[in-house]
This record gives sequence, C-alpha cells and structure tokens, in this order.
Amino acid sequence: MQTIWETPWDYRYAHRMQRMTSSVIRELLKLTEQPDIISFAGGLPAPEVFPIQKFREACAYVLENFGPQSLQYGATDGYLPLREMIARHTSRFSAEVNADNILITSGSQQALDFIGRLFINRGDYIVLESPTYLGALQAWNAFGAQYIPVRSDEHGMVVDELEAALRIGPKFIYVLPNFQNPGGSTLPLERRKQLVKIADKYGVPIIEDDPYGQLRYEGEHIPSIVSLDSEYRGPNGGHYSGNVIYLSTFSKLLAPGLRLGWVVAPPEVIQKLAVTKQAADLHTSSFNQYVAYEVAKGGFLDEHVKLIRATYKERRDVMIEMMEEMFPSGVTWRKPHGGMFLWSVLPEGMDSSEMLKRAIERKVAFVPGEPFHPNGGGKNTLRLNFSYSSPEIIREGMARLAETLKETVISA
Amino acid sequence: MQTIWETPWDYRYAHRMQRMTSSVIRELLKLTEQPDIISFAGGLPAPEVFPIQKFREACAYVLENFGPQSLQYGATDGYLPLREMIARHTSRFSAEVNADNILITSGSQQALDFIGRLFINRGDYIVLESPTYLGALQAWNAFGAQYIPVRSDEHGMVVDELEAALRIGPKFIYVLPNFQNPGGSTLPLERRKQLVKIADKYGVPIIEDDPYGQLRYEGEHIPSIVSLDSEYRGPNGGHYSGNVIYLSTFSKLLAPGLRLGWVVAPPEVIQKLAVTKQAADLHTSSFNQYVAYEVAKGGFLDEHVKLIRATYKERRDVMIEMMEEMFPSGVTWRKPHGGMFLWSVLPEGMDSSEMLKRAIERKVAFVPGEPFHPNGGGKNTLRLNFSYSSPEIIREGMARLAETLKETVISA
Repeated sequence: MQTIWETPWDYRYAHRMQRMTSSVIRELLKLTEQPDIISFAGGLPAPEVFPIQKFREACAYVLENFGPQSLQYGATDGYLPLREMIARHTSRFSAEVNADNILITSGSQQALDFIGRLFINRGDYIVLESPTYLGALQAWNAFGAQYIPVRSDEHGMVVDELEAALRIGPKFIYVLPNFQNPGGSTLPLERRKQLVKIADKYGVPIIEDDPYGQLRYEGEHIPSIVSLDSEYRGPNGGHYSGNVIYLSTFSKLLAPGLRLGWVVAPPEVIQKLAVTKQAADLHTSSFNQYVAYEVAKGGFLDEHVKLIRATYKERRDVMIEMMEEMFPSGVTWRKPHGGMFLWSVLPEGMDSSEMLKRAIERKVAFVPGEPFHPNGGGKNTLRLNFSYSSPEIIREGMARLAETLKETVISA
Repeated sequence: MQTIWETPWDYRYAHRMQRMTSSVIRELLKLTEQPDIISFAGGLPAPEVFPIQKFREACAYVLENFGPQSLQYGATDGYLPLREMIARHTSRFSAEVNADNILITSGSQQALDFIGRLFINRGDYIVLESPTYLGALQAWNAFGAQYIPVRSDEHGMVVDELEAALRIGPKFIYVLPNFQNPGGSTLPLERRKQLVKIADKYGVPIIEDDPYGQLRYEGEHIPSIVSLDSEYRGPNGGHYSGNVIYLSTFSKLLAPGLRLGWVVAPPEVIQKLAVTKQAADLHTSSFNQYVAYEVAKGGFLDEHVKLIRATYKERRDVMIEMMEEMFPSGVTWRKPHGGMFLWSVLPEGMDSSEMLKRAIERKVAFVPGEPFHPNGGGKNTLRLNFSYSSPEIIREGMARLAETLKETVISA
C-alpha cells in the first residue's frame, strides 16, 4: 500500500522563526473576547470616540468622486494628498518636512518591521529603553537584533548614560518620547536636545516612535526629536535630511481598523523603505488612504483629538483614583501625562505573571511587565490600559484588581 | 565652528538590502501617469468593472451595523466570517478546508513575503518556473533565496523534469498553474496530479499562487493543486493538512485598492504565518475585511466575475487580433486561456529592453521579459497586459507597438 507522508513543516521553517513567538499581549487579547472579563490588557482605543458618521460621509464622498482611483492599485509611497497633509502637519510642529519625507505604512507596526528589514543584520545592537514597546521587539527579534538597554527613570531614557552605549556601535537608538508604552514616561525637552546632540556626535540614527504625541492630558507639548534635530541642523529648504526617523499613526487619532501609519525620514531613507514596502505588500490600501484624507483634511482631527483627550483623561483619572483608594501599600505607579497606559510596580520579589492567573479568576486582566524588558527583568511590573473601558468598568475592574493585589501582596 | 555631519545612511543598511532594487515594472508604472502613453506594462484590473455602487452600499451597511468593530483592532488571522466564506468557496472547488486553514493577508504580495520569512534561510533553493512572477522574486531576494528553474513550455512547468530539481533539496516549489504571470500558460490536469505526487515523494511543499484562477475565458476549470493534494490524501474531516500552501486575492475579483488576499494552508502553517503577520503589521484592515465580506457574501462575486470575464475576454481577443494582423513575422505569442497577460517572443538576438525605448517614443509601453527570469535570460521576450485598456485603446496601442516592432525587427 502507498504511504502518504505528512509534511515535516517544523523542519522547513527558517531559523529567524525560532525567536518568533506569539505575543503575550495578543494571546491575552483573546481573553477580552470573553464578555465577563474586564481587560486592561490590550491597547485598544475607545470605540465610542470613533467618528463613524464622518467615516460614512467620507466613504460615500470618495466612492462618488474617486471610485475607480480609490479602488485601484496605488503608489508604494502612498496617496500624495495624504502625504502632503502629513508633511504640513509635521511642519506645523517645527520640523522642515515635505511630501518626499513621508511614507504611508499599514500601521506603525509595519514601519517598525520595515526599519528592522532595512537596518538590522543578525547580531546588530539596538539601543533602547527598558521597558520598551513590545511590538518593536517582536519585529526586530526576527532579524536577529541584540539589545542594549539604557536606564530609564520616570522621565524616560537617562540620556546621560547613553554615550557609553553608543560607543558599542549600535545600528540605531529607539525611543518613545511621549507617554511611553508601557512605562508612561515623557522625555523632557533638555533630554531630547541632548539626545539629538549625542546621536549626531556618534552618527547613530534615532528612531522616534510617537503614536500618542497628541494625546496629552496635562502639561505643555514638547517638540518632537525630529523637529529638534531639524532645528539643530538649521534651515534646509523645507526638506528634512537629518538623523531621525519618526513614526506615527492614525490608529489613535482616527481608528486602528484602517491600518494607516506614516514615517517621516530623509528622502533617501524613504526611498529605501518604499523598495522594502514594494516587496512586502506593494502599497497600503488606496481606499483607506482616500477615506482618511477626506476625514482629516478640513482640520477635523484637531477637534476630534479634543474629544479623545477629554475621554481618556477622565479614564486615566478614574483609574488613578481607584489605585490611590484601593491598592495596598508597597504597590506604586506613575501618572502619565498622556497616552493610554499606566505602569505599576509591585513589591520586589513579586511575580505579576503569577498574579495575572489570580486576576483572571476574579475576571480582570492586565499585561505582566516582563515581556517589555528586552533582556529580561521587570517580573514585578505590570501595564494597565485606561483608554478602552468606560469609567464605570474601570471602577469595577480596578476594585477586582485591588482585591487580587491585596490577596497576593499579603500572601507573598 | 561646530561641524554638523550628515548621517552615512548607505553604510547603515542591512546586507539584505543589497538585492533589493525597485522593480522595473513599478518604475514603468510611472510612465502610465503620462496621459499620452498607452501602457500595456502594468498589471491593473479594468477600473470600469469595479462594483462601486456595491461598495457604497457595503460601506454604509458596515458603518451602520458594525461601526465600532470594523474600525477597531482585529484578529491577526482575519475577520472570522470572511475566513469562513473563503473556506466554503475553497471547499466548493473540492479541497476540504475550514476557517483554521485560512489567513487573511494585505494582498497576495504580503503572502509571498510571509512565505519568504517563514521558510527561506540565506542560500536556500526554490524550484520555480522561468519566467515567473516578479513580485515573488522581489519578496524572496531579500531573504537570500537561490533559484532552480524547471523548464516551462506552453503548458507551464515540465513536471517530468521536476524530480531532478527536487533531489537538490529545495525549500519549496513555486508554481502559478492558471494563466501564469507572465507566460500565460495553464498547467494541465495530468501535470498537476504528477506535481502533487512528486512533491509528496520528496516531502517538498508546493506554493500554489492563483490570483487569476476564476478569470478563465475558454476551456474547462482545472482543479487547483491544493484540491488535488487534498484528494490524494483522502478524507480528513473537512480540514486540510496536506503539502500545499495556496494563495489567492480579492485584487482581481473585487478591487486591488482594498489590499485583501488570503492563504490556504495546514493549520500549523497558518499559525506560523499569523505569528509572522503579528510582527509585520498586526492584522489586515478590519474595515476592508468587513466591507469585502458584505460585498461578496450573497453570491455577488459569481455574477460579478462573469462581467469581468466578458470584459477581459474581449480585450484579449482584440489584442490577439491586432497581433495577427499587424505584427511582423518572426514575432510569436501565446494565447492565454484566462488571466491578464500575453507573452510574446521576438526573434532570437533581439533585446526587448532596447525596443521599449523606441516604443516609448511612439507612446506605447510594455514590460521587457528579462526580469521575470530568476537566473537571467529571456532578453527577447516581453509581457503585454490586456485587462486595463479599452478595446479602442488596445487597437491604437497595438498599432503603435506593431510599428515599433516592424522598425526594430527590420533594423535588427
């Protein structure tokens, strides 16, 4: 009788897959599908603030006026009016930027992936904060990156300690200056200026990841690192050719379901990223780019961001109020000036992954902090999302979490 | 005075970028932006057949009924009702498939990229046709693939010659069985069955790339390789766990501007591809998946495909009629039974890239065939797209091309 073999798939995979495991966060997101669990684990925007009516109008307008173009293949670097709009928006915050400095990506995650492809040879070093954004680590692990964490405090990367790391010869520096995910810290102006200078001294590029920059609930806007780098280099004819690659996204301003992000970088880097994008997915959805442009073009986003800010500020404040009231002593947290996340530290020696299991029994979830630490550590830390749940749900969830914490801190 | 250095970007890029150059086709697409050039170079669907009214209704329906979900982050493997619909569609053509066998991608190009990431170590061999799809070469060059072309004739890969190639130990076999891009050939049933058996004998997986399978203008539908592999293995409880990874797309059935493709594969491969997708772009646009589902769910596509077939068949026939009437002797071509492309061979010793320059002077464009040959060759070949231009434009463009050809063939 004929033998039909099974394909030995496990032995066919490339070695880069050995470091590719499904994210703890994504696995936890599956828990949020159970309606009785209150999840502070994800990083979802509040669906109540999605401008659905605006989208309906924009979809109808685009299909009426640009039907064939919006449904056709498009340019790899993105829909030109959208790129021009983003360039104007970026220039407003003082970097000299034009459309040649802009690439549209399928969300910011894709920009992180492309940066990995473009720069990282197996074994290359990357300087970053610890904890840092898990999605960046996931993207870059596949390319064999190694990490040099620079110490971070409540104000983000301690730039005084950066120079020693740069002398190791890293490929680039990765930093989230505003309301960092997960740590919640914001890098002060002086540190940003110092970062620009030290990076320039060693010729090491900076990747500035800024998904939440406009979601500030208190304090003054601090100029982006790309704009400070642009200033540092002086006037250049409205065109940026400095040392920073800046990433942002419509996911937090409009809606993540569109998968629209962008990169600001020198034109030569944008061109290389476009070659990468061509091989990766040809281009980002034309239709979504047309629709986002229609929604955003009349200054709508400025108004809309006010609504998002008011909504999230209330939720952050409710979450902190509950922590102050109910969390046992020995548990600390940082109040972020914006963004979507609170970072909390349990007493030394405690394990937040263990605690998560007890929390899930009480029908509440968060993300353990350890995976955000590229070289390990942070077992006693955790991240809480405050943007997704209503204030009432936050109160209930935080009460459940406080119970879990009290039980765990006492029994530890 | 302080020196401000420029960042030496060229020395920062990873070595994988050395084989990443912008596609000739994409560069040529820029020519199509000049309105006076008739371009047979691209691979664009006819915008006249985009179901714009259907999209308007679907967008309104989705935003009315699923506004928050459709704009929110979604599952990495895709919108479940869409995956289930694709599974039913695939099963209709006889492979036993369920939703666990399906991953939604941002176009088929992304599936090719993910397959490269998942399987290819630097130096790995891939068995394929020559000429083959340029987008696959672009995707896999980045991962350091090497290519073993198997001879192709007017019926596609000569499967009798495959076994020698498999004994070299390739990672996988890549084949476009229907109306191949660029060659226009269709693999006959017997060759498909033989391919399934030989691949199984050596345990080498098959990547079946099928963007045009439903765009057949004459002859009978031939079962897909994945369905023949499924049959070969026998009943498996409605679930596919064989040796084939099948790729297709909504780009040719609905609209490429949505960037929606899909993979059919054993669940363990789908899970690995999903881990890859998570790091690459989290997930494909939720909104576009909801909209495509709404457009396609009521059996609309079956009707719509008839319209596309009628439109493209006429255009193919007009193009061939013009070739028969006007092309100089010594120039040959293949009549494809479907798809979007005609393949033409000039007399030996002629260079279609040189001819392209003369063609552009006469305001007509095509793609030289050489880049489709992974290991070089095919200098005297070229590809013509017949789906995009109206019959009138095809007549005019082909007349211009015939003039160019006559001049070139005579002067050569």
